[in-house]
Amino acid sequence: MTSMASDPSIKPVILSGGGGTRLWPLSRPEHPKQFLKLLSEQTLLQVTAARVDDPSLYASPTVVANSAHAEEIALQLLALGIALEAVIMEPVGRGTAPAVALAALNAAPQDVLLVMPSDHVILDPKAFHTAVRAGLAFAKQGWLITFGIAPTYPETGYGYIRKGAELGEQVSSVERFVEKPERATAESMLADGRYLWNSGIFLFRAERLLEELEHHAPAVLSAARGAMDRARREDVRIATDTEAFLASPSASIDCAVMEKVERVAVVPVDCGWSDIGSWDALYQLGPLDGAGNMVSGAARLVDTSGCLVRTEGVRVSALGVSDLIIVATRDEVLILPRGKSQDLRRFSSD
Amino acid sequence: MTSMASDPSIKPVILSGGGGTRLWPLSRPEHPKQFLKLLSEQTLLQVTAARVDDPSLYASPTVVANSAHAEEIALQLLALGIALEAVIMEPVGRGTAPAVALAALNAAPQDVLLVMPSDHVILDPKAFHTAVRAGLAFAKQGWLITFGIAPTYPETGYGYIRKGAELGEQVSSVERFVEKPERATAESMLADGRYLWNSGIFLFRAERLLEELEHHAPAVLSAARGAMDRARREDVRIATDTEAFLASPSASIDCAVMEKVERVAVVPVDCGWSDIGSWDALYQLGPLDGAGNMVSGAARLVDTSGCLVRTEGVRVSALGVSDLIIVATRDEVLILPRGKSQDLRRFSSD
Repeated sequence: MTSMASDPSIKPVILSGGGGTRLWPLSRPEHPKQFLKLLSEQTLLQVTAARVDDPSLYASPTVVANSAHAEEIALQLLALGIALEAVIMEPVGRGTAPAVALAALNAAPQDVLLVMPSDHVILDPKAFHTAVRAGLAFAKQGWLITFGIAPTYPETGYGYIRKGAELGEQVSSVERFVEKPERATAESMLADGRYLWNSGIFLFRAERLLEELEHHAPAVLSAARGAMDRARREDVRIATDTEAFLASPSASIDCAVMEKVERVAVVPVDCGWSDIGSWDALYQLGPLDGAGNMVSGAARLVDTSGCLVRTEGVRVSALGVSDLIIVATRDEVLILPRGKSQDLRRFSSD
Repeated sequence: MTSMASDPSIKPVILSGGGGTRLWPLSRPEHPKQFLKLLSEQTLLQVTAARVDDPSLYASPTVVANSAHAEEIALQLLALGIALEAVIMEPVGRGTAPAVALAALNAAPQDVLLVMPSDHVILDPKAFHTAVRAGLAFAKQGWLITFGIAPTYPETGYGYIRKGAELGEQVSSVERFVEKPERATAESMLADGRYLWNSGIFLFRAERLLEELEHHAPAVLSAARGAMDRARREDVRIATDTEAFLASPSASIDCAVMEKVERVAVVPVDCGWSDIGSWDALYQLGPLDGAGNMVSGAARLVDTSGCLVRTEGVRVSALGVSDLIIVATRDEVLILPRGKSQDLRRFSSD
């Protein structure tokens, strides 16, 4: 065994299970957010994979995705020249817990996995990598590491983490997890200063995650194990067994594992993170033109300010309007005031 | 000769020359306003033709149109079972004066022509027909009759007519025509009570119009005469001679003739007239839903009020917005506040 084998680099696990409803009408179930070019000429999936395309720290990535998206994912990474370790195909989405379980079962026990959603943005990757390095020593010792984002406003759409005692440089124990809060609670946590946003990005040894799943979510683990044992493998593609996978309950890795284990630590990081979970969140990322508009696609704006205008295949002409979100595709047009994009759910799904 | 021949019914002349810019993006040069189904399942052209589909008062209509639209016009009237007297095809648009000249040259000298734009709406046709009957006796005596609409607000997009002495029941002399006014002028005319909107609808004997053209716009008349003399005729279609027609200056029938002749009279009429010259004008015609929205096409409105939403082939979802004009097609989306639709011209024509 070489020292590389006994001291493996970090294996990125990219979760591509998003349903694609919050950036409707651009995101759709068949074309979820990770496949959108929201901030650059690359899709969010590509940006996520490119972020860990550094052999000095990271091995080739594994993507866990709906089987319907496997081909698209392979093509997108091929376009960047990024070799995949594996694409693990789920027959349906059952949340992040079974998805992570599949990846952990496919890894060597000692592998350190960096679990990342495929549709988040990190504007300062350098700060992120520094945080990952800080967490790595603890992950190797068996800690389950979360990355916590210093909150900048009282967001009610995120879970929070209260950090406890410092365990080492940049690493603290987790005192508790807080579910998505009410507004008042979010405000008091923001004021408190010891609360961080739960980014949904994790670092741990594969065998440690499996141990905790065994303890806290055995049904998830046994379903994932069955699905992997009977998987069909072809090149990098791993088609998990449908019947076995369907036996898994739906569960998030946060609720099923992270919030329940003892040896969980948090690395606070200020890396320009966003889950781009709404049109308003996208607008926050900018850049804006001189009138405060964020524009993408063919648009003519006259006397228009503070608007997010995003159009694909259709020209938008706006005159004399302010602070609107305007999103147009060839078959859908969405118009609502900025600050209201959480209300998208008020449209029934017809 | 029968008495019918010596006392012809009124010959409608429908002017289909509109350029189609003011209701952009629904109206386009290739698909102007008269071809839109703005207020019913019929196009404005069809509504205009159907309005005079009454043999007790009107003969078959003549349409003057761009040659590119002749086929569409024939099909639209065929669909209503309305027989055309003629479609007079212009190679290019040169305004209403040459268009009316062509129709007058194609008529018998004694024919009484009712000249109507193809893209206006009249919500009370009965009142309109009563006004036409009132004007008919004067038209037969050689008067050029205009129809004047009682103004309901200080519109700056219309010409005005100041009525003078009463000539007979419902018929007054015209004291003067007023060009499209400034706002303050429009307000004082509205307050005055003797001013009417110039509807662009006229009634006169063909020979009288030709006499006045000869006197006031001889270049228009001679071009029109040349274009008709050398026209190619096939069935009801009359393709005017391009070279001859191109010799005509551009001129409106108002400026070239009506404002200059002595024997011009006005019939005031309250018939729910609109030229639907803007999105705001369309909104005025309603009907509105309980939240003051005027909706046409596939739209989902949540907490939305006072909006004109018009969509073709695209679904519009609006949430929490008020008093907007939203028009969507498969390639263009327009958004502006209600009351601002005159500002459409601020978009360059690119």
